[in-house]
Amino acid sequence: MLAEDKTKELDDYICELGKNAKLAARQIAKATTQQKNQALTEIANALENAEQQIIQANQMDLQAGQANNLEPALLDRLELTPARIATMIDGLRQIIMLSDPVGQISDMSYQPSGIKVGKMRIPLGVIGIIYESRPNVTIDAAALCLKSGNAAILRGGSEAFHSNQALAKCISKGLAQAGLPESVVQVIDTTDRNVVGGLLRLSDYVDIIIPRGGRSLIERVSSESTIPVIKHLDGNCHVYIDEDADNDKAIAVAYNAKARRYGICGAMETLLVAEPKAAEVLPSLIEKYQQKDIELRGCDKTRQQGENITAATEQDWYTEFHGPILAIRVVEDVDQAIEHIEIYGSHHTDSIITENMSHANRFMTEVDSSSVMVNASTQFADGYEYGLGAEIGISTNKLHVRGPVGLEGLTTQKFIVIGDGHIRP
Amino acid sequence: MLAEDKTKELDDYICELGKNAKLAARQIAKATTQQKNQALTEIANALENAEQQIIQANQMDLQAGQANNLEPALLDRLELTPARIATMIDGLRQIIMLSDPVGQISDMSYQPSGIKVGKMRIPLGVIGIIYESRPNVTIDAAALCLKSGNAAILRGGSEAFHSNQALAKCISKGLAQAGLPESVVQVIDTTDRNVVGGLLRLSDYVDIIIPRGGRSLIERVSSESTIPVIKHLDGNCHVYIDEDADNDKAIAVAYNAKARRYGICGAMETLLVAEPKAAEVLPSLIEKYQQKDIELRGCDKTRQQGENITAATEQDWYTEFHGPILAIRVVEDVDQAIEHIEIYGSHHTDSIITENMSHANRFMTEVDSSSVMVNASTQFADGYEYGLGAEIGISTNKLHVRGPVGLEGLTTQKFIVIGDGHIRP
Repeated sequence: MLAEDKTKELDDYICELGKNAKLAARQIAKATTQQKNQALTEIANALENAEQQIIQANQMDLQAGQANNLEPALLDRLELTPARIATMIDGLRQIIMLSDPVGQISDMSYQPSGIKVGKMRIPLGVIGIIYESRPNVTIDAAALCLKSGNAAILRGGSEAFHSNQALAKCISKGLAQAGLPESVVQVIDTTDRNVVGGLLRLSDYVDIIIPRGGRSLIERVSSESTIPVIKHLDGNCHVYIDEDADNDKAIAVAYNAKARRYGICGAMETLLVAEPKAAEVLPSLIEKYQQKDIELRGCDKTRQQGENITAATEQDWYTEFHGPILAIRVVEDVDQAIEHIEIYGSHHTDSIITENMSHANRFMTEVDSSSVMVNASTQFADGYEYGLGAEIGISTNKLHVRGPVGLEGLTTQKFIVIGDGHIRP
Repeated sequence: MLAEDKTKELDDYICELGKNAKLAARQIAKATTQQKNQALTEIANALENAEQQIIQANQMDLQAGQANNLEPALLDRLELTPARIATMIDGLRQIIMLSDPVGQISDMSYQPSGIKVGKMRIPLGVIGIIYESRPNVTIDAAALCLKSGNAAILRGGSEAFHSNQALAKCISKGLAQAGLPESVVQVIDTTDRNVVGGLLRLSDYVDIIIPRGGRSLIERVSSESTIPVIKHLDGNCHVYIDEDADNDKAIAVAYNAKARRYGICGAMETLLVAEPKAAEVLPSLIEKYQQKDIELRGCDKTRQQGENITAATEQDWYTEFHGPILAIRVVEDVDQAIEHIEIYGSHHTDSIITENMSHANRFMTEVDSSSVMVNASTQFADGYEYGLGAEIGISTNKLHVRGPVGLEGLTTQKFIVIGDGHIRP
């Protein structure tokens, strides 16, 4: 086939996806909670019944991955086991239990003219999700979009192609059995990379794009998309130990924020310590980190508190290490801590450890991050821990949603006005 | 000067505006309500004291406008009289009375881990506003941004240049007298058209762009901006008279929705009537509209109910006439009405007239517009009427805000987490 025929064919394919999604969006927007929960239950059943086929499809992806020398960490993320399928099913059952945000009416009040004005929560419409190797995102994202009354177009990584297609079949089956259009969730069934560019320009049909993956994916999506993007950039998170911190809490939180897990976006990357506290908390923290083989990079004053600490560079303050490396800086006070976080931070999650109410208030007000914490570990930055039930991502946007995005983040509000024949004078 | 030197100079100028705004944003974000209200009071005083200078500056604009053959309607919008300045001052006093959304904490609740999670309302940061001839927008927009804790960069129309500069002086004076940085509100002081393009690409410093003006301005801004835009496109609004409508209410509302004012975006452009009602309400409505010299364009069934009704074209259903023209269509039922609005409408404001609860509910749920109304005139679509106190525009966006945008629409929410030394297991 000629190259331009192929391009035309792909354009037609993407446009068709968009049209189908837009039609399906109107159906799913008015579906009852019961119907949506039934679809989720049927998807869970379909996954249970198709376990063997899913694992077989996954084997094809794993073999191709090995042949293509995929890194072991990526192969691990790609693999589906019976236990991982059970976790997906469990996730579906949790989403069934969440309350449905669609149709909620709030802030209804009479106005001087006599009309009653309030807000009604409604789905966003069509959500495009672009993600990388983990195939469980296919089920997660589909379920969250469905429950919040949105149609979804999903584009997974090509390395998980067969796994995603097998999961897509279960989703279609579940939707059909609940009497909903199968095009409520469409999983793109071509590995052609140009399809991503096409999806990002489908602004007539798609209301929002959510990328889930590494920095390069998110940057590509943000720069190419003509559709609004809910993006989650780096988690360069800080813990600041204030001069009025309780030492035990400070040590426990600062250790947990780094050492519990390195790879999650809520992991602390830089520890800030108020100068009067340095000698009280740093020696034992340094010992604990080093026992856990965490590499430390510090400012001069930090290096006076322990051995084997390399000198931190300017670049270290900007870095999300995503591994067993921690930068430590001694600062003068809460002002300098806030200043440091503003300059070097990524506006994700930052925590102050203090017993001083006014320092806590200043930190909460002035640190412009999607989550600000007092006396708690940054590792809590997560939709489940926040009571959202599930999250589709953590937004560092300012508009629309900031922080973990659950079902409510996938909806918006419109105004409703009730009169009784009211006319405007 | 060489062209490229000029470009460089303009780029530097815009970048400087951005940097100043970003620094000022941090100051105004933490300003107290009292301090912000004091600034608004001082701006009102400065306007009162500078009335003569403002009117002189406005005269220069009006003379230039006459010399450039500006349309009389535009000249009228441009003119500042003592009464119009008094209205601006009154607007400021109203904004002072509004409650400050910044710092509001909501949804605080304990989670199973023991941490307490809630949301705090915060300013968006830096808001860029691009608007056309009315100079009162300078004061309005500045006041709304200031009260909501945001820094603003304002770019008015070149035809109002001198007026806007005179108003800008009052704003600077007011900010300074309240001890706030003057760069909280920066009014661009060059008429170089390239400055708009530069502002729309200033995504390192500007968090949101709000265009206020005609369709061509909004389309240009939307297509060029790399910054999220709160946009307000057409108001192609509908009233649907249901088969279960009360005739008196139907006639009163359908007349008011069109005839009260033609030029506002909440004016009805197409009237839909359920077939069983056509003979009951259309004859008297047609008479009332025609007495007011409103040109009618109808479908075949509409034309059977009166004289001098031209045949409506497909294009008429799409059109925001913005004047004394109305399209009328007889539809089968609420389904066909919703379908018509979905196909031809602009998702701005649509109203159903009915006594039937289930039709009202279906209309409210299924019509995907920023405001949906029951038994009320679409002309109510306005921030003041909704109790927002003031509006910076009406958003037809889905993300972030939909409908009239008041102070709350200029803010966002971040998560706050309070622990007592909590670590994540």
